[in-house]
Amino acid sequence: MFDPFTEVDKRAINTIRCLALDMTSKASSGHQGAPMGCAPMAHVLFTRFMKCNPSNSQWINRDRFVLSNGHCCALQYSLLHLMGYKVTLDDLRDFRQYLSITPGHPERGMTDGVEVTTGPLGQGISNAVGLAIAQAHLGAVYNRPGFEIFNNYTYCIVGDGCLQEGVASEAASMAGHYKLGKLIALYDANNIQIDGDIKVQFTEDVCTRFKAYGWNILKVEDGDNDLDAIANAIEEAKKQTDKPTLIYVHTTIGCGSLLQGTAKVHGCPLKVEDVTQIKEKFGLDPTKQFNVPDDVRAFYNGITTKDAEYEKEWNALFEKYAAAYPAEAKEITRRLRGELAEGWEKLLPTYTPADKPTATRKLSETVLNAICDALPEFIGGSADLTGSNLTKWKSAKDFQANDSGIGDYSGRYFHYGVREHGMAAVMNGISAYGCGLIPFGAGFLNFIGYASGAVRLSSLSKHQVVYIMTHDSIGVGEDGPTHQPIETFAALRAQPNLNVVRPADGNEVSAAYLQALTSKTTPTVLCLTRQNVPHLQGSSIENAMKGGYVLQDEPNPKIILAGTGSEVSLCVEAAKLLKQENIPSRVVSLPCLSLFDAQGPEYRNKVLPKGIPILSVEAGSTFGWAKYAHRSIGIDTFGISAPAGKIFEHFGLVPTEVAKKAKLLISEFPKMTL
Amino acid sequence: MFDPFTEVDKRAINTIRCLALDMTSKASSGHQGAPMGCAPMAHVLFTRFMKCNPSNSQWINRDRFVLSNGHCCALQYSLLHLMGYKVTLDDLRDFRQYLSITPGHPERGMTDGVEVTTGPLGQGISNAVGLAIAQAHLGAVYNRPGFEIFNNYTYCIVGDGCLQEGVASEAASMAGHYKLGKLIALYDANNIQIDGDIKVQFTEDVCTRFKAYGWNILKVEDGDNDLDAIANAIEEAKKQTDKPTLIYVHTTIGCGSLLQGTAKVHGCPLKVEDVTQIKEKFGLDPTKQFNVPDDVRAFYNGITTKDAEYEKEWNALFEKYAAAYPAEAKEITRRLRGELAEGWEKLLPTYTPADKPTATRKLSETVLNAICDALPEFIGGSADLTGSNLTKWKSAKDFQANDSGIGDYSGRYFHYGVREHGMAAVMNGISAYGCGLIPFGAGFLNFIGYASGAVRLSSLSKHQVVYIMTHDSIGVGEDGPTHQPIETFAALRAQPNLNVVRPADGNEVSAAYLQALTSKTTPTVLCLTRQNVPHLQGSSIENAMKGGYVLQDEPNPKIILAGTGSEVSLCVEAAKLLKQENIPSRVVSLPCLSLFDAQGPEYRNKVLPKGIPILSVEAGSTFGWAKYAHRSIGIDTFGISAPAGKIFEHFGLVPTEVAKKAKLLISEFPKMTL
Ligand SMILES: [Ca+2]
Ligand SMILES: [Ca+2]
Repeated sequence: MFDPFTEVDKRAINTIRCLALDMTSKASSGHQGAPMGCAPMAHVLFTRFMKCNPSNSQWINRDRFVLSNGHCCALQYSLLHLMGYKVTLDDLRDFRQYLSITPGHPERGMTDGVEVTTGPLGQGISNAVGLAIAQAHLGAVYNRPGFEIFNNYTYCIVGDGCLQEGVASEAASMAGHYKLGKLIALYDANNIQIDGDIKVQFTEDVCTRFKAYGWNILKVEDGDNDLDAIANAIEEAKKQTDKPTLIYVHTTIGCGSLLQGTAKVHGCPLKVEDVTQIKEKFGLDPTKQFNVPDDVRAFYNGITTKDAEYEKEWNALFEKYAAAYPAEAKEITRRLRGELAEGWEKLLPTYTPADKPTATRKLSETVLNAICDALPEFIGGSADLTGSNLTKWKSAKDFQANDSGIGDYSGRYFHYGVREHGMAAVMNGISAYGCGLIPFGAGFLNFIGYASGAVRLSSLSKHQVVYIMTHDSIGVGEDGPTHQPIETFAALRAQPNLNVVRPADGNEVSAAYLQALTSKTTPTVLCLTRQNVPHLQGSSIENAMKGGYVLQDEPNPKIILAGTGSEVSLCVEAAKLLKQENIPSRVVSLPCLSLFDAQGPEYRNKVLPKGIPILSVEAGSTFGWAKYAHRSIGIDTFGISAPAGKIFEHFGLVPTEVAKKAKLLISEFPKMTL
Repeated sequence: MFDPFTEVDKRAINTIRCLALDMTSKASSGHQGAPMGCAPMAHVLFTRFMKCNPSNSQWINRDRFVLSNGHCCALQYSLLHLMGYKVTLDDLRDFRQYLSITPGHPERGMTDGVEVTTGPLGQGISNAVGLAIAQAHLGAVYNRPGFEIFNNYTYCIVGDGCLQEGVASEAASMAGHYKLGKLIALYDANNIQIDGDIKVQFTEDVCTRFKAYGWNILKVEDGDNDLDAIANAIEEAKKQTDKPTLIYVHTTIGCGSLLQGTAKVHGCPLKVEDVTQIKEKFGLDPTKQFNVPDDVRAFYNGITTKDAEYEKEWNALFEKYAAAYPAEAKEITRRLRGELAEGWEKLLPTYTPADKPTATRKLSETVLNAICDALPEFIGGSADLTGSNLTKWKSAKDFQANDSGIGDYSGRYFHYGVREHGMAAVMNGISAYGCGLIPFGAGFLNFIGYASGAVRLSSLSKHQVVYIMTHDSIGVGEDGPTHQPIETFAALRAQPNLNVVRPADGNEVSAAYLQALTSKTTPTVLCLTRQNVPHLQGSSIENAMKGGYVLQDEPNPKIILAGTGSEVSLCVEAAKLLKQENIPSRVVSLPCLSLFDAQGPEYRNKVLPKGIPILSVEAGSTFGWAKYAHRSIGIDTFGISAPAGKIFEHFGLVPTEVAKKAKLLISEFPKMTL
């Protein structure tokens, strides 16, 4: 049972409201409406339920808190401050300012105690699903009778905006399917959005919808004042062990303001008179800003002190666990250090040109079969394309609810459903949990576009996640233009902190996994073919790890053919045709442009020297290639539906055409100028 | 009441099943499982309900049919053939072949009778919502007592995959909110997906979810055989005038196959023995392929003949309508011709440098206020950012359900909710309806990524839709990196058939709208600033309509500064600094690169001649700029949270830095080589 509420709780809540108010007033920017409405539920959650240790925000079994309505971050920063995280009153004063640790929306890695980056609506609640999955999985793998090593809760505050986003719908459906009992979301139901009353755009019955997903639904009628009701609901939610819970908390946006309950209080700083009357109404000194009354400070300090015990208790438990289960404890410790099992990379297969031509998606499957048993932290699945993506390794067991009969929480394979965006956001959440978890998700490359909202956050939040995207070009064939990526390579390559890898053969696929699994702060998109490609003379893991390299060369090449993925072997064939005409050439493979760029100018100039014409060849948009090549063969329209060979022919992606264009470039190059 | 079902209906359904089977067998590719399961509902729909005219697939008041599970297109092509659309048996034989009109997934514009492009899951049902919105709107605007000019239904077949996609959730929620009574979706509930039984990933209660959205729910227990139940459900659905209807139709995937009811029958061609036993079981000649028995042919011919009457009746009605309501009829006729009101473009405002600096989003609002009354076909709104996107023109009335009390179906302003993807897909549907409708949608530019699945289809399907995306750079300021687009320009520009327009000032904003509203087969993304920009000497609508032009020039420029949007004025300021040092320069504005590229090499070389160093300046990724510039100033990391001015400074996007880099480039250019 939770500690009873007293007057100091009310004062604390009003203090939080006014801190948020002072932050947005000082910044002349930001949102105070939702913080003022959400302060009661956040206060109840942090003071009565959250098991965390503010002096070590990385303690692995901490309860996770996600603020899905990230624009409400003045609330989160205020709480982090009161709780004793590394957020000072000065940091609150610096809200949204240059180089502050209190940016406009919560950013993972920027602020102590912030678990995930939110603000782009719908992402936080979806991350929360991933966090809860991670806990369920680790608990199933490592907990032993009497040793609940991983048993934390994931709490989330979520607003109307988040719940309208499709990504949240996808993730919520997954959460219900997986029966994630330790996931508890508090829905800040204030009936207001930026465009006004929700009646203009959002009249669905959210609770019934979540019930349909398999969630437990609870309601709090007066979320502005009824702290007992909030706390009782959370207690009730914790008792529901086989369903996630959505607590509908009816609140008043901008609670206390003269404009409360209207869209006007959402995101515009309030007038001075309004701020004054709010503070007076709340019994706080209207002449003071960033004011934390002593009793409130003392109260929160008490919470902080109590919280430190949780980790101590856990450490003691883990010590006993280590004695009883040394192998498991050792593995957990290794994973917590972020190290992969020693020597795992020796499992990566290598190939010679004598090996049979194979689709890179199939070569990817071979890698997964080779490494997955050695890498328990590598978990993932497909968005309903398992048989096409070839992502299910031989020994894989499904992650499913324990009573499902078709897997359990210790399983590592996910059937994400046709939910690319939800999958990506859930992956970000799994990655955010820590304990070395590296999630992967798979689909057709073309449909990574559905997920780009979350893929962007993979990069921004530095999540080590791996997107295994197959059917990476017109090589898709008959499925046609709706399924053939064209602009996708360019779109992904333009995104900061994302490695886009398009391996050409078996060795490059192995390199791609080596790169993905060792890039701790950069997500990776693997672009893999549907169709077979030969293993190439000159390819190696070591070479491919540079992002670009000379695959084949001849003395004094007259032209450089630079390709990626399935077009590298096309370049090799074209080079043979040129050789028949006594035209020496070089073939360069560029599996990962960002990695190649990172090698520095000296290496890059060695591979792609000035003064020799360079022709790039890639079955995708030529957009972006001018940086590397003088001319580009590619596809700047949408694709067509036909057998793949026909389509490559249609777009001139055949050796004869490449050779022809190479000769043309050789002849015109001398006349070309900057 | 529908015509009773007889034996010929069963034979017709089995014929359709076998046509689909023959198509996938001959192509050795494609999906027969869903067509075999959906054949009964499709047959019932097309023979008993669809009011359409196969000899004129463009008749404006036709009932719309959308196959949301587009991989099921063998079904659609078979029906279009039987119904008498321009799809021959040879076209069916050519399924998925080079240059055929029967591609791997349905493509609008490719096949007579196909309304929208589907295959990317979730899009079709969302397009259907748009089609139903369009009908509701046009009916409210133009129908008169006794003259139901626009009263068609929108029917949609949708599968499990579509209903898992977030975009479908978003659109379905909108449909419920808007009470679209003429939207009827048949849910092919076969419990199977590619990854197997839906129990592995999709255990939510779909019907309850849709009920929560405000839909009417009906069920058909035996969708394989019970034609009366299907027809009764559709009749029932038509009676529900203030809710869209979802008819849950329980079917068997691959109905008739030895593998029926399993994932194996989804997308792999069946064995010959299986095909033979299917045809025998169905009473069809197993030695024949692409066989339409005479009685089935005769039956469908009867339907075709009857269908031609619908348009005749409508034409007669419209003639009377034209006599009674000549102004309305004239407007409809104009719109059907795809012409805008004469002289509308004269309403576009123009500016001189004396006019006050203004944010381009605000200038966009001025344009909307100027033109919207003259352009009844231009309809749209915002994804819950009306006050930020500034998209609500003065006279705008909300599109809302007629009984909502806050608007009605004749309204043209949409509160799409925080549903960017659903918004875009609904826009595609509105555009697909025809009658000149040009939908627009608005949001923060960064969140167009949420919608990219549908934005891609805007381009592929050649929908004239307009994305009004504001807050187009780090100029967003305090909201921080989660809200600041970086890779977005590049990602959009790489997409075929998409005009990405980033206007620099008032004249360029007017040009952007002129371009968007006259590009009949190309969608447009307008990228607009949050922050103020000055009106530039040298800008004009005419110039901007070329996509790029010399804004300011000096004799023998030593450098060309090429910018877009808010960075053009930055280039102008830098040019002033250079002038102070006696360095003559040229400033080029490039509001739309695709349009600039389309001007041909002569014009392009005049604007950006060889031999003069070119420095591009854009507050976004430099990816893609090497095609136009020798060096680029941009941002290749994520942004930061701070007041906007600080951020521009941080990234060197200030006149002094641009001038400095210009001088550096001037000095190094002579040594640069290709
Ligand atoms: Ca709200
Ligand atoms: Ca299905």
